[in-house]
Amino acid sequence: MSRSKDALVGRSKEASAPPVALGSDFLQLDIGRAPSGGRTEWLTARLREAIADGRLAVGSRLPASRVLAAELRVSRGVVTEAYQRLAEAGQVAGRGRLGTTVVAAPPPPSPPAPRSPRPPPSPPADRTGAPFGGDAAAGAVDALRAAACRIDLSPGVPDLAAFPRAAWLRAERAVLGSLPPSGFGYGDAQGAPALRAAVADWLARNRGIRADPGEVIVVAGVAQALALLGSVLRARGLDRIAVEDPGSLGARQQLEYGGFVTVPVPVDEGGLRVDALRASGARAALLTPAHQFPTGAVLDGVRRRELLAWAAGEGEEEGGGGLIIEDDYDAEHRYDRSPVPALRSMLADRVCYAGSVSKLLAPALRVGWLLVPPGLREAVVSAKRHADLGNALLPQLVLAHLVESGGLERHLRFVRGRHRARRDAMLRAIGTHLPGARVHGAAAGLHLTVTFDGGDGGDGGARTGGAATGGAGGAPGEAFTDMDLAAAALAAGVKAHPLSWHRMRPGPPGLVLGYAAGPASEIEEGIAVLGAALREARKVFREPRQPRGGSRVVRG
Amino acid sequence: MSRSKDALVGRSKEASAPPVALGSDFLQLDIGRAPSGGRTEWLTARLREAIADGRLAVGSRLPASRVLAAELRVSRGVVTEAYQRLAEAGQVAGRGRLGTTVVAAPPPPSPPAPRSPRPPPSPPADRTGAPFGGDAAAGAVDALRAAACRIDLSPGVPDLAAFPRAAWLRAERAVLGSLPPSGFGYGDAQGAPALRAAVADWLARNRGIRADPGEVIVVAGVAQALALLGSVLRARGLDRIAVEDPGSLGARQQLEYGGFVTVPVPVDEGGLRVDALRASGARAALLTPAHQFPTGAVLDGVRRRELLAWAAGEGEEEGGGGLIIEDDYDAEHRYDRSPVPALRSMLADRVCYAGSVSKLLAPALRVGWLLVPPGLREAVVSAKRHADLGNALLPQLVLAHLVESGGLERHLRFVRGRHRARRDAMLRAIGTHLPGARVHGAAAGLHLTVTFDGGDGGDGGARTGGAATGGAGGAPGEAFTDMDLAAAALAAGVKAHPLSWHRMRPGPPGLVLGYAAGPASEIEEGIAVLGAALREARKVFREPRQPRGGSRVVRG
Repeated sequence: MSRSKDALVGRSKEASAPPVALGSDFLQLDIGRAPSGGRTEWLTARLREAIADGRLAVGSRLPASRVLAAELRVSRGVVTEAYQRLAEAGQVAGRGRLGTTVVAAPPPPSPPAPRSPRPPPSPPADRTGAPFGGDAAAGAVDALRAAACRIDLSPGVPDLAAFPRAAWLRAERAVLGSLPPSGFGYGDAQGAPALRAAVADWLARNRGIRADPGEVIVVAGVAQALALLGSVLRARGLDRIAVEDPGSLGARQQLEYGGFVTVPVPVDEGGLRVDALRASGARAALLTPAHQFPTGAVLDGVRRRELLAWAAGEGEEEGGGGLIIEDDYDAEHRYDRSPVPALRSMLADRVCYAGSVSKLLAPALRVGWLLVPPGLREAVVSAKRHADLGNALLPQLVLAHLVESGGLERHLRFVRGRHRARRDAMLRAIGTHLPGARVHGAAAGLHLTVTFDGGDGGDGGARTGGAATGGAGGAPGEAFTDMDLAAAALAAGVKAHPLSWHRMRPGPPGLVLGYAAGPASEIEEGIAVLGAALREARKVFREPRQPRGGSRVVRG
Repeated sequence: MSRSKDALVGRSKEASAPPVALGSDFLQLDIGRAPSGGRTEWLTARLREAIADGRLAVGSRLPASRVLAAELRVSRGVVTEAYQRLAEAGQVAGRGRLGTTVVAAPPPPSPPAPRSPRPPPSPPADRTGAPFGGDAAAGAVDALRAAACRIDLSPGVPDLAAFPRAAWLRAERAVLGSLPPSGFGYGDAQGAPALRAAVADWLARNRGIRADPGEVIVVAGVAQALALLGSVLRARGLDRIAVEDPGSLGARQQLEYGGFVTVPVPVDEGGLRVDALRASGARAALLTPAHQFPTGAVLDGVRRRELLAWAAGEGEEEGGGGLIIEDDYDAEHRYDRSPVPALRSMLADRVCYAGSVSKLLAPALRVGWLLVPPGLREAVVSAKRHADLGNALLPQLVLAHLVESGGLERHLRFVRGRHRARRDAMLRAIGTHLPGARVHGAAAGLHLTVTFDGGDGGDGGARTGGAATGGAGGAPGEAFTDMDLAAAALAAGVKAHPLSWHRMRPGPPGLVLGYAAGPASEIEEGIAVLGAALREARKVFREPRQPRGGSRVVRG
């Protein structure tokens, strides 16, 4: 299969990859082995095995159903039904002329006992229509992250080529030159004092947060911040956390793994809908207020006041109120607007604040910080101590050196110009190749989001706005999804996140596009590929709907 | 108080620190504020506050009771009773001419809900007589670790002055010179492939373990290995783990924090008593088989076979057997004996193997590795991913470079000579200053353990052996404890671990002494201080016992 794999997942320049080459030995399938009357199950199982062991790699395209049916000498309905079952399991996506692409390996086999420390309660009734549920989504994200591609437009990664290697090495030499031997021993699990002090300074200068170094807890990224905080809150009996919707799938999975039910609260142009948060009854909420992920909305002044009032329990009986968990993931990256102060700077007693260097410098460093209200601090530091006895020391001291020497500030100023130019390149490319797409969140950060009219077969032109469904071509449910679009792009070597991954309730299709990590030429090309996939999708869905289960549901 | 603190906890050359200087303003205590009839409670509370906020630092000595009573113009019984209450809470130790020394800050205030994710079941009936229970022990360990001292004989720390700074920096330059930009992104949560391969090689060469890189999980030290493995095992319904007794207090606390009941299983000269393990009914056991902590015993051949038979479930019904958790913390450090193969090399299906660079290079690096049976791997990798998305990348790659270039081997050979010389210096000093002490575990590792006849007032000479209690001077319970000895040493600026910290069931007093971290001159001096404290203790307990609660229970 290596020839086919190279053609698909390697560095081909073709705009769209050919399907897996056929011969009489496609996957060495021998239909004679299938039980009579059970060919669909048999074929589905063989395809699943091939996906699981990598013979059909994520990103590869399955043969057109007509072609495979002829090859195997079965009716086309057997093949289309097998493909449909894999699609329902979230392992393949795409239909018709888009081709059917492998998007996820199967979920890992279940262990003998529940995966999370305590099985989560039944999901709330308002979690409807998510394209992926539970394990398939987790597997899909991991598989997509691991899938090879030519151009990566995944959000959340800064300009890695700009990592200041020389400055880092100089700082490490300085640290190693002055660290006393005892410094190499078991240190302070809460974090090296030098880094806690540097972080406190940085937060004061950049985010308006006044904190003592003693309030700073050094953690291994925001992921660990959520894990530690989650374990402490669970131990205190909290089992539901409100999350933004749309909102980060990764953060949601983190909380659910920790045993929480995540309650979706809608987001609009002003940020989180605080009225809906109040109505949800949740006592804690995870937010990205400075630059909402993924929509880019900024929590506006009115909503800030409402949210802080909610947290402070205004109008409630004694002991009411709520806890805000502020994920300040990319607030230092802004182009066209002034800085937004952190919520933590306004109500430290009710706000847990998390940030990291992942978007400032590089995700590989695994250094972040967490500030919590005083009543939680002891327990969170204890959780950190028991988790790993503290972060690795040398990266902490090197980072402290970079902050204190001004190196981090210089780096930020340097990359700001590069990021801005890349954002502009993406906006131009979107204007060219994705006409009618609506752009969200481009004023700051390292990603933007585009939404489309609902795959209704329209032929582009001026954006009409609103969340469109159905339309001229197909009926609701037959419209293409953003998963289809992302799958088609992946087959052509371009990785992007479907917006539906980051949604719990249904909404218009879209893509979440990172622009910081690669050069303008790759951005242009990647958006062009997405544009081609979009045009293809629109053509397909102009044709009249076919009844499900018939031989023409999936066009070869 | 700074003058007093300097005299006590700073770099004084005195063999024993004077008590806190008095004047009319010792802690600004004004007995007039005490309620009549409640002076003892009042004084106890004032002393507790002063310990909590650091005015009475760990290691400082309280005034002699006679002196403080005169100063405050109260009866001596009020003072001795207040000191007794603090001693019962584990905050002070030492009596009579040894003086009363602060050994621990109070435990942190309890949070509103249980501290551990689920409250542990009642401890088993065989956990009797531990000198410290629950929170006080945790606080005592942390406070002792943080306490300043002149000479640190704590176990578990290698020669930190020998950390290969230049080699580390050279390796980091090489890594930074060749890492592609994408390498700075979100990496493999299971660990950088280069390090997993290097660890697999290292384990094959040094521990007889044959493993694929795919079986290696990079973790943030053995602490994290236990935390991750613990969470997976708890999720599968395991709630009791057998631990060696004596055995590491830190490991036991880690497991208990994770919600396990730890079941003590005795250790003798052949290592873990496998018959007792079997009798305990536990289905998992944490061991240090290559060099038992703290006794240094090696699990002998007979016990190995018995243990592996237990794990394999021989003689049991289908589905029996047990899980071995092998903490291979310092196996590469050996002087007078040949290497002992890891249990993992004999029965990979039933052995979880954990190791780290903490004793090889430095605890501050926070890099370790965990190998688990295949049925656990997926869940443990998932736990690691959700814990922190993977270790920091650069230390992983630098370590891989050091392993592959032979740098780590060279470092080990270099420090072996230094460690051996320091061990020899400690053995000589023990022979001189601690006659009659019995030495355990000196053939390998970075620490040894000494045990004493049970504080019975004997005047040294030939070691009689056996676990002695009572004796010529005092009755059982009045003999000095190893906590008293460690407290007295700390007051003189020398830090050592009392053996009783690492015990769950009672046993002869002893000390666990690390010799790797400091030069021979410090070792000699530290042991001399311990010898002086021991002689003082023996004199004190030659005097007849006094009834508890009377004015002479604590001699001023």
